[in-house]
Amino acid sequence: MNVVEIIRKKRDGHENSAAEIRFLIRGVVDDSIPRYQVSAWLMAAFLQGLGPAEQRALTEALIHTGETVDLSHLNGFKVDKHSTGGVGDKTSPILASIVAAAGAYVPMISGRGLGHTGGTLDKLESIPGFRVDLSLEAFRRVTERVGFCLSGQTSQFTPGDRILYSLRDVTATVESIPLIVSSIISKKVAEGIDGLVLDVKTGRGAFMKTTQEAEGLAQALVEVGTRLGKKTVALITDMSQPLGRMVGNSLEMIECFETLKGQGPQDLTSLSLELAAHMLHMAGRADRLDSAHRLARRQIGNGKALQKLAELIDSQGGDADVLFNYRLLGESGGIFEYTAPRSGFIRAAQADRIGEAAMLLGAGRRTADDTVNPAVGIELLKKVGDPVQAGDAVARIHHDSEASKDQALGKLEKAFEIAGDRADPPPLVRKVIG
Amino acid sequence: MNVVEIIRKKRDGHENSAAEIRFLIRGVVDDSIPRYQVSAWLMAAFLQGLGPAEQRALTEALIHTGETVDLSHLNGFKVDKHSTGGVGDKTSPILASIVAAAGAYVPMISGRGLGHTGGTLDKLESIPGFRVDLSLEAFRRVTERVGFCLSGQTSQFTPGDRILYSLRDVTATVESIPLIVSSIISKKVAEGIDGLVLDVKTGRGAFMKTTQEAEGLAQALVEVGTRLGKKTVALITDMSQPLGRMVGNSLEMIECFETLKGQGPQDLTSLSLELAAHMLHMAGRADRLDSAHRLARRQIGNGKALQKLAELIDSQGGDADVLFNYRLLGESGGIFEYTAPRSGFIRAAQADRIGEAAMLLGAGRRTADDTVNPAVGIELLKKVGDPVQAGDAVARIHHDSEASKDQALGKLEKAFEIAGDRADPPPLVRKVIG
Repeated sequence: MNVVEIIRKKRDGHENSAAEIRFLIRGVVDDSIPRYQVSAWLMAAFLQGLGPAEQRALTEALIHTGETVDLSHLNGFKVDKHSTGGVGDKTSPILASIVAAAGAYVPMISGRGLGHTGGTLDKLESIPGFRVDLSLEAFRRVTERVGFCLSGQTSQFTPGDRILYSLRDVTATVESIPLIVSSIISKKVAEGIDGLVLDVKTGRGAFMKTTQEAEGLAQALVEVGTRLGKKTVALITDMSQPLGRMVGNSLEMIECFETLKGQGPQDLTSLSLELAAHMLHMAGRADRLDSAHRLARRQIGNGKALQKLAELIDSQGGDADVLFNYRLLGESGGIFEYTAPRSGFIRAAQADRIGEAAMLLGAGRRTADDTVNPAVGIELLKKVGDPVQAGDAVARIHHDSEASKDQALGKLEKAFEIAGDRADPPPLVRKVIG
Repeated sequence: MNVVEIIRKKRDGHENSAAEIRFLIRGVVDDSIPRYQVSAWLMAAFLQGLGPAEQRALTEALIHTGETVDLSHLNGFKVDKHSTGGVGDKTSPILASIVAAAGAYVPMISGRGLGHTGGTLDKLESIPGFRVDLSLEAFRRVTERVGFCLSGQTSQFTPGDRILYSLRDVTATVESIPLIVSSIISKKVAEGIDGLVLDVKTGRGAFMKTTQEAEGLAQALVEVGTRLGKKTVALITDMSQPLGRMVGNSLEMIECFETLKGQGPQDLTSLSLELAAHMLHMAGRADRLDSAHRLARRQIGNGKALQKLAELIDSQGGDADVLFNYRLLGESGGIFEYTAPRSGFIRAAQADRIGEAAMLLGAGRRTADDTVNPAVGIELLKKVGDPVQAGDAVARIHHDSEASKDQALGKLEKAFEIAGDRADPPPLVRKVIG
């Protein structure tokens, strides 16, 4: 097979065959195709697009570059959730605990944060001793025993996707729906799942800025997931302001624990239950979505979800006392209150700027090599629609240095808009696809 | 400056600044920008195009990656011709001899053949002893003394273009007008010329299959050349059938010599004079094109052009006796006549297939690493519009092996079409631009 011909076909807007795509991806992994040919193909694919058959072929080719988890011996439905990423987006530990408590398996591989968006692994690592670098074997064992697992991508998993992603990152070929879809679905299918619920974020803090873009991505994700024989549903949800009130690793874990105790903020609780309900409905734990919703809510009320999370923390080497002693998560050196410069109603709390503020404090990464500080972050006291008086505290900056506090403050001042008339917060779930 | 940003701009159809393009090309040459980023940019440029300012910036950036020939001390106009390549296209030695004989300088850097198209350097090397690997210094000296020079690109010349071209070759980004234009013009301007006549071929044997495509290329070439302060004219000429009657290195040199003796085929003589006339007119050696044409023709009639070529061969280490003793060029082992399968008129003598036939005999290269056999080739006894009787010889195959003869014959059988009614040969010059 001739690589130049494969590139030329895509360049001219023709379809690559499944065999051509397999050949290309195999060449990426065994290094028999030079990176400069791969990146030319990626740019051609970016600009000319990939059809449904090509997306499926690319996804399957990526899956087959590594090992896949075999969970077929487990007598139960295996379901996962994937979010396209946002600010304060901490539903994973909450809904995974709920769904496992209600009897479905959740073998969840998560990622780290970059730029203004956070990552589940960084949040989990603020729990003392908690390990996210499980082997495939340990991942399988924990899922089997506890009912769920929260770990990171190992080198055994879809290595082709990792190479392709790092190449896309330096060749301006990241923001392509077909390439994003194959990357997401390949990793998820390799976990050995039967079904997948997708949380496609939209708004300033999300990758997809408009509902229309998010819908395009959601539709492609559902289509490829379904074609690969997985039950797939996508929710398009708001990311114009952060989810919940906490942004920062330890702060977000505390908010997860509070939510599982029934004391979480309304938006985070609502979205976590909504996603969990879709997972449970898909898993056949309830006939209808509304009964699935009630089943999910019950796992909070009866304390079972919190109990599941305690089991998981213990199984992954962490100290489960953290659930009741938040000091174990560490605290920042100082807290500074950002106050409202005038009276009115909060009209915007821009997620991207608040995420950047947290990153500047040390909660996130500017580049993939940075390390994160678990203790720092932003606590939102007011959100969109809330009334404020001039001088009221709007947010708390949990910081470890004056310099970083000042930088974060500069971002917050731009993030919050106060207007004379009340604006309704945007609907949390905009659409369900699939 | 950020390479990913430069790629992203081009990807999104925006214009790259001259500084960005300079940065990119500098990075190509000093290897500070990885090839995979360069190829992503090339594919983006291929699909999104480059505007006039970008083409100019790219051309200038390529020129500045190497040395340029300084011929400013020569008291005379320096003019060159460039052809986009074809089959039997041997005008360079003819017109360069004519133009030098008529008093303008022709510092000409030529290339080698690839695929079905021939290259001037390969043809010249069939002359015993003739050197085409002159240093820049020798190139300058020969041009000064003889009035012209025919040599190959040295490593001192536009190394950026060589790297970029080799990358385009393996990433399916060759057939892009802006990239072709910058490659051609940068090499030509680096020769130290004042003016350039372009022979843009069109038809089956050419890179540009249609007149429309050829016009697009011609216009872009003239625009960039003119913007760089060079007088530039482009002729769009026919390459549906080979030019002249000979295809193959020694055979084509013989045809050049015959043409300079006034005994060349009509089409080759006519096109060589036409191109030479444009060069002489541009050089101010004649006020009008028709008087420039007469001036050119005179250099054949009075024997001065042939004399110039003798001087040149001598200056570049060759044996000028070859002009009158063709046996010095070497002869093939055998000659086979391809005869007409039926009576009628030649309707087509497809240039690409005849070029491939010559390549299969060993006259051309399948890949850049192949070596060529100077003695073999195809001699056309009939061309489009000629009447034939069944059994008449249509072409002679000069071969060195039966196997290669059979392969070439297979191509010739497909190349020639014989029809019942007479077709006129296509016009040689389709359009003049600039």
